[in-house]
Amino acid sequence: PSSKLPDVGTSIFTVMSALASEHQAINLSQGFPDFNCPEPLMDLVTRYMHEGFNQYAPMAGMPQLRQKISLKTEKMYGYQPDPDTEITVTSGATEALNAAIMAVVKAGDEVVVLEPCYDSYAPVIRLCGGSPIYVPLALPDFSVDWDQVKKRLSSRTRMIIINTPHNPTGAVMTKQDMDTLANLLEGSDILVLSDEVYEHMVFDGQQHYSALQHPQLRARSFVISSFGKTYHTTGWKVGYAIAPPQLTTELRKMHQFITFSTATPFQLALADFMDEERHYLELPGFYQAKRDYFVEQLQQTRFEVIPSAGTYFQLAKYSGITDARDLDFARRLTIESGVAAIPVSAFYHDKTDNKYLRFCFAKSEDTLRAAGEKLAKV
Amino acid sequence: PSSKLPDVGTSIFTVMSALASEHQAINLSQGFPDFNCPEPLMDLVTRYMHEGFNQYAPMAGMPQLRQKISLKTEKMYGYQPDPDTEITVTSGATEALNAAIMAVVKAGDEVVVLEPCYDSYAPVIRLCGGSPIYVPLALPDFSVDWDQVKKRLSSRTRMIIINTPHNPTGAVMTKQDMDTLANLLEGSDILVLSDEVYEHMVFDGQQHYSALQHPQLRARSFVISSFGKTYHTTGWKVGYAIAPPQLTTELRKMHQFITFSTATPFQLALADFMDEERHYLELPGFYQAKRDYFVEQLQQTRFEVIPSAGTYFQLAKYSGITDARDLDFARRLTIESGVAAIPVSAFYHDKTDNKYLRFCFAKSEDTLRAAGEKLAKV
Ligand SMILES: CSCCC(=O)C(=O)O
Ligand SMILES: CSCCC(=O)C(=O)O
Repeated sequence: PSSKLPDVGTSIFTVMSALASEHQAINLSQGFPDFNCPEPLMDLVTRYMHEGFNQYAPMAGMPQLRQKISLKTEKMYGYQPDPDTEITVTSGATEALNAAIMAVVKAGDEVVVLEPCYDSYAPVIRLCGGSPIYVPLALPDFSVDWDQVKKRLSSRTRMIIINTPHNPTGAVMTKQDMDTLANLLEGSDILVLSDEVYEHMVFDGQQHYSALQHPQLRARSFVISSFGKTYHTTGWKVGYAIAPPQLTTELRKMHQFITFSTATPFQLALADFMDEERHYLELPGFYQAKRDYFVEQLQQTRFEVIPSAGTYFQLAKYSGITDARDLDFARRLTIESGVAAIPVSAFYHDKTDNKYLRFCFAKSEDTLRAAGEKLAKV
Repeated sequence: PSSKLPDVGTSIFTVMSALASEHQAINLSQGFPDFNCPEPLMDLVTRYMHEGFNQYAPMAGMPQLRQKISLKTEKMYGYQPDPDTEITVTSGATEALNAAIMAVVKAGDEVVVLEPCYDSYAPVIRLCGGSPIYVPLALPDFSVDWDQVKKRLSSRTRMIIINTPHNPTGAVMTKQDMDTLANLLEGSDILVLSDEVYEHMVFDGQQHYSALQHPQLRARSFVISSFGKTYHTTGWKVGYAIAPPQLTTELRKMHQFITFSTATPFQLALADFMDEERHYLELPGFYQAKRDYFVEQLQQTRFEVIPSAGTYFQLAKYSGITDARDLDFARRLTIESGVAAIPVSAFYHDKTDNKYLRFCFAKSEDTLRAAGEKLAKV
């Protein structure tokens, strides 16, 4: 019998990271830091392991962690989700996205997906028998074209997936975007899946505006976040979903049969470490400095950049250098120039190629400088 | 819109563990040890975290760990799976089961499920639009009735799920079982999902017989195992799937969009610690001693027992005590007698009640003795 996902090949993150390592290129492709997570956070993991916390966490997550998430959410977004009925800890944000889609999308349903986007949304929708309805973000700034979205809504629309700060473009949605979305959905029972894993990386004095801040949206939304992004622990695979009780009930039915629960010592360590508010309060400044440094480097090159507004990604347009397809150019850049990036066409279902590469700047200054020097020679 | 899994409520593991904790009962319900994992294994985790291994592992798993799994599989079962194309590390065996079912079951497919069984199989089949075809294991010893299985195979059968050593009954499949299964499937393209997470807990000099040992079965099987069971780390959520390249390709397409990857420092620590072969070679003896001790305790009670042949579970028949339904009796036992167990009806889709409770004996002697004393008063 044939594949259920015939057109899914090796993920671009795997392809580019492997190519980078094969050619000893500087890997600015897959999104992860090249510096370590905070020492005290690791020490907490060690302590909890030795205290014997190595067995199953409760299915919904350690109560301590859900409590801390609730308090932090209140502090940041003015809404305090109930840890018992509205918060679920998952094995990474990817699992949370999977569980949310699986929980509500049925055969024949349509889900609006704004492109470019993270590569897991559409396959999971299709596995549910649903159809992704693609709406491209508007060039040049990758803002949402809400009129286009409106035109694509129908009686079959079950959900719309939004992502802010936005991977791969670094675009950030405003309160006005959220208001427009809320108005669009009013009177329908269309749900929202809001992927906010880069919530702590918004620059230039702007603020992340969460779907949780918007009462009308919150009531119909799964909001997803990730400890991996915030605490430099992408390899621990701890994320979470916040949703109203009825949606959380359905999401947990999926989570129960996907992973059942998430690593106990990491959950306990993160719960304690969340008290260090400074860590995430300083994150915008920390990453903005990296963005600025990397943008400076890029300004010495033939790439064109508009500074990223959020995430740890920077797009760079290379149409002044070549009209090669972005995937080919990304390969050549890795092999010949020693810097790996992600071709943005990989985030479009039809491989739309706007001649952009995505660079991850969650790297040490040394790494960013070395990359800049190599890119200047292109 | 209605739930996609309307009849899934809170899992029996959550219900009983919560009831146990509420009533300070000894928790022999959910399957996990009450002792800690080996000290050197935790030290390895600490070391790898401090060495900076806190970012994404490769999607298929750390190469070191897949290599070690391959070598160990060869040593144990005489077959050396290719780490690159046949082994995938997952976030627990539950994820591996989910990914395997998701990878191959399509709408309209039938999957043979032997009952009683772990509660995740059927919901995942149904989420794929498939139908579980239930075949009860034969009383009194919960052996597989292959004639019954044969009768339920059809042109729509996509897969059969087997589980040995068997949760919840402790039954163990023999080479003859596997031969019979292989003969049944010959000439068909029916796949096998073989859940072998308790592979290292087989007692009384018997040997676990893996689907991997059987060339005909191996060629059509996903074989699932779990580091949580073997290394007393159920809360780390590291498991794996071994399958032929074509099946592995499809499984990884799912894994990529379920969790993408699994906790890096745990994977590296487990890879190193697998060199301590003594750990798993001594496991049958270690758990057999616990089983024997617990069975001795139960022999002082009004429960009837046939010693478990494998897993860390012991069934006990209580029909000499009461004819209450097993769920009611399990609740009363927790609240009034201070010992929590799992009612075996929870492992049947129609809640078939054969008057059995399942006790987990992965506990210290003190715990098992205290439980025995309480059960003797029932
Ligand atoms: C899960 S691997 C991809 C990491 C990531 O979010 C990205 O690089 O876009
Ligand atoms: C994932 S919780 C259930 C643990 C277990 O396998 C069992 O108790 O049967």
